[in-house]
Amino acid sequence: MAETLFNHPRYPLLVVISGPSGVGKDAALERLKERHLPFHFVVTATTRAPRPGEVYGEDYFFLSKDQFAEMIEEDELLEYAVVYDDFKGVPKQQVRDALNSGKDVLMRLDVQGAATIRNVVPGAITIFMSTVSEAELAERLSMRNTETAESLKLRIATARKELLRLKEFDYCVVNRQGELDETVDKIIAIIEAEHCRTHQRQISL
Amino acid sequence: MAETLFNHPRYPLLVVISGPSGVGKDAALERLKERHLPFHFVVTATTRAPRPGEVYGEDYFFLSKDQFAEMIEEDELLEYAVVYDDFKGVPKQQVRDALNSGKDVLMRLDVQGAATIRNVVPGAITIFMSTVSEAELAERLSMRNTETAESLKLRIATARKELLRLKEFDYCVVNRQGELDETVDKIIAIIEAEHCRTHQRQISL
Repeated sequence: MAETLFNHPRYPLLVVISGPSGVGKDAALERLKERHLPFHFVVTATTRAPRPGEVYGEDYFFLSKDQFAEMIEEDELLEYAVVYDDFKGVPKQQVRDALNSGKDVLMRLDVQGAATIRNVVPGAITIFMSTVSEAELAERLSMRNTETAESLKLRIATARKELLRLKEFDYCVVNRQGELDETVDKIIAIIEAEHCRTHQRQISL
Repeated sequence: MAETLFNHPRYPLLVVISGPSGVGKDAALERLKERHLPFHFVVTATTRAPRPGEVYGEDYFFLSKDQFAEMIEEDELLEYAVVYDDFKGVPKQQVRDALNSGKDVLMRLDVQGAATIRNVVPGAITIFMSTVSEAELAERLSMRNTETAESLKLRIATARKELLRLKEFDYCVVNRQGELDETVDKIIAIIEAEHCRTHQRQISL
């Protein structure tokens, strides 16, 4: 018995990276991938058409609306949402396989999607990415050059609303301008620390 | 208000490193000191006489039994214990000063001392250091050459009892043989992750 206690288990984690649009979630995940750690990065399923250069199974799983509907019916999506006229969601089997192989699973979701995961998978670790200030978020969004003044205003208003939900998350990582590696280090530290928790929950989907 | 939300606070932490005798707490703290991070390492007060080479205020605060009794009466010790015929304890003011200066405070305590701190300071972070197996702990203890067969047996029995209290701790760090830097990295990751928690408790003594 004592021997079992000595041997602290290391259960794979389900980690959700979330936060307002423009905080740098994609950039952080890209940088994380470059670290070549034994993580599984979730590939989202979508019904939208591939854009030039996008690779099936790498950027997204491109599915027909029929295929997507089937996955919904078979309860094979951990979470899904309608984005404009298209659907996107997280295939359950993929996450299950990765966890079974002992890998920590990382996924990027909007604040609403993170809330869904928290309900479906109580053991999931949720990280809210933020910026130092609202001004910095506005600056990032306007640098995208894809935002009109109106849509920028809308995104900032949404971010404010989303920040009010910060306390629903386990962690908050402030992504400071030009300090993406620091942000990635913090995410890795959170994952490492979670593996050391005495109260760990084994995730089953 | 939103601006305040963006600005995630970084409250200093009180971190207790504990675990059975022989797991390597002292070695881990020594290695941590060498990293030159902005931590305050608690200097314990003791009534025992200094050993050759020990420096006042660096290794211990060497106090008379009268001085120690006074500190107990004035409630100026966070925790104290009787070790053989001598007393040792953690001076409150030192911890208070370090926290006020914004530094994370680290202290080394036995399992009983850690339990006391948990009651007195509910926001304290407690880390249980362990070894991979009981055999490894026995090996480490016997390598000390200061243990008789009887005292070794006693220490192992105590370690078994202490392991049953693991779940009272927030974290468990397994100190693998020859991997002290890995152990120190884990402790640092835990501290970094705790600073990112959305539910932080400001410590007041």
